Amino acid sequence: MNPCFHFPSILTDETICRSNIRRMAQKALAHGLMFRPHFKTHQSVEVGKWFKDEGINAITVSSVTMATFFADAGWEDITIAFPLNIRELDEINQLACKIQLNVLFDMPAQALVAAGKISHLVGYFIKTDVGYHRSGVEPNDHDTIQQILRATDGTSLTFKGFLTHSGNTYQAKSINEILLIHNEATRLLYRLKMIYQDRFPGIIISTGDTPSCSIAGNFNGVDEIRPGNFVYFDLMQYHLGSCRFDEIAAAVICPVISVYPQRNQALIYGGAVHLSKESLISKKGNLIFGLVVPFINGKWGNPEGDDYLVSLSQEHGIFTTESNWSKLLKPGDIVAVIPVHSCLAADLLRNKSTLNLRK
Amino acid sequence: MNPCFHFPSILTDETICRSNIRRMAQKALAHGLMFRPHFKTHQSVEVGKWFKDEGINAITVSSVTMATFFADAGWEDITIAFPLNIRELDEINQLACKIQLNVLFDMPAQALVAAGKISHLVGYFIKTDVGYHRSGVEPNDHDTIQQILRATDGTSLTFKGFLTHSGNTYQAKSINEILLIHNEATRLLYRLKMIYQDRFPGIIISTGDTPSCSIAGNFNGVDEIRPGNFVYFDLMQYHLGSCRFDEIAAAVICPVISVYPQRNQALIYGGAVHLSKESLISKKGNLIFGLVVPFINGKWGNPEGDDYLVSLSQEHGIFTTESNWSKLLKPGDIVAVIPVHSCLAADLLRNKSTLNLRK
Repeated sequence: MNPCFHFPSILTDETICRSNIRRMAQKALAHGLMFRPHFKTHQSVEVGKWFKDEGINAITVSSVTMATFFADAGWEDITIAFPLNIRELDEINQLACKIQLNVLFDMPAQALVAAGKISHLVGYFIKTDVGYHRSGVEPNDHDTIQQILRATDGTSLTFKGFLTHSGNTYQAKSINEILLIHNEATRLLYRLKMIYQDRFPGIIISTGDTPSCSIAGNFNGVDEIRPGNFVYFDLMQYHLGSCRFDEIAAAVICPVISVYPQRNQALIYGGAVHLSKESLISKKGNLIFGLVVPFINGKWGNPEGDDYLVSLSQEHGIFTTESNWSKLLKPGDIVAVIPVHSCLAADLLRNKSTLNLRK
Repeated sequence: MNPCFHFPSILTDETICRSNIRRMAQKALAHGLMFRPHFKTHQSVEVGKWFKDEGINAITVSSVTMATFFADAGWEDITIAFPLNIRELDEINQLACKIQLNVLFDMPAQALVAAGKISHLVGYFIKTDVGYHRSGVEPNDHDTIQQILRATDGTSLTFKGFLTHSGNTYQAKSINEILLIHNEATRLLYRLKMIYQDRFPGIIISTGDTPSCSIAGNFNGVDEIRPGNFVYFDLMQYHLGSCRFDEIAAAVICPVISVYPQRNQALIYGGAVHLSKESLISKKGNLIFGLVVPFINGKWGNPEGDDYLVSLSQEHGIFTTESNWSKLLKPGDIVAVIPVHSCLAADLLRNKSTLNLRK
């Protein structure tokens, strides 16, 4: 028995990861796009090196803490793709004197406070809400845009362009819906660029969630993409059609604890603190928290059937033993769980137990 | 500005915690129950000391890792309330030579492997499924019970009794339903005790989720209770009726990043990696991930209205600004979030940022 598999561990497959990275880098190159991958998915210095091997030098993160972590690991061009937290200006100043840093504004108040406190050159994007309604300025709200631009005029803050995250692709019901969201995001951002580029030559538009970047073939008007999840993919992306099953590069390895043949279920050591409570609705309409697949010779295999995790508590995971394979499982066996959302599973397990299947 | 509140931090209120601990300890005493609190909620050596101050010497945990952590902190009587993971028998042996350890079996296979490998005295409970259908032997499945008892006969494993966790109280629609679940669990476990106590004098029944232990007034037949969540409580318990709002002892303190008056929403730095994606259905039928309340003079206040978190991504939390108070929030303000599930929020933040409001 491998001692690493006594308890839930995340296992990444370096070969698949590197192939996912290379494919996205080549797609960006083919479309003339700058590629600034989001590192919130892996939060790993080692996986970062695999990006560097593909010639990537600019990255995206979602917190100042993560920016500091990757700056310490040698990354010198980082966009913090989260509207500026005006309570972290000291940390931002410290970072900005070491690296090329970009931040986001979606309110004049953030720009005003930052303009008064930031003493090093910092780039900024105006976060634009093109339909996800999480954060961002509405694309026709020129009054707010102008206030942000005025607040930073003549300061060490340089306007870089318009940026969005179309997270609503994650709720899309079809590939076609993902493409419609992607095209509309591009259209709205491009219109903004056209309006402001005379005053601010060189501004760009930055977009690119994983579903759009994986599926779309038309990036006309886009300058930069920032997908992150594609490095691992996961069950959500597989269900959306963003990836093939054999492109998924991370799984959570769990021991089987008990089996309950009378109700076609089994218990794994693997719960909300390992996989997160991110869920999906399966094709049959059930709430699911992951897909259980075989784990053989140190690698996870293809699904044998609808062996879905149907409930998670803190440490317990219950899955339905639908396939002939899963009905034969017994205590002490090891299974792999394809997580619904690899970003959250990786965040939960990176300080507990992370393993890498080497090339 | 307090530097601790630059990013999401969990804040516990020692006065409320100690009062929650004392109240449950006194309730156990009044009903003649052994009190073996579940430490998975706080996973904190310091909070553990507050239990010790109330005379508590026996505890419950949900993993071997947690048992080792608390054994190292001086706890000498621990039940691991998770069916035995036969891959962790070496760790269990190491623990059992230092402390009084109890484990759970719900399959003969676990008992057989453990009987062959465990070399120190270990107690065990038969985990019984009285309706939650997560794990456990069905209460009328005497064949399985007998196989477990036979497998441990003449070994260093001592049968301690029947144990359950009625986690289905968390889905209850009313206080009455919680009481029905509690009474049925007690009835089924007590019947088992009656059947087996002649052969195994001194066996006990152990029960006690937080909703049952908080609400029930009748514990006839119960020997031991193991609630955990009550130390902090949370929004879920408040909605179930297990606690008053002023008995909630933990909140996640978050900075406001942006406000969006046109859609009555605001953005906090506080997402799935801080609060977990545990959700509730509000009384109005909406999916919610926490309740935003004022944070004044280092303490959280009462709710001002239905200022619920309505979506969470990795680091972002969006809440609806329903109250007059929340409509006036601006970037840089600090708010408190009452988490849906304090166990998961505490697990997520305990290694990131934990603060304690001292007595």
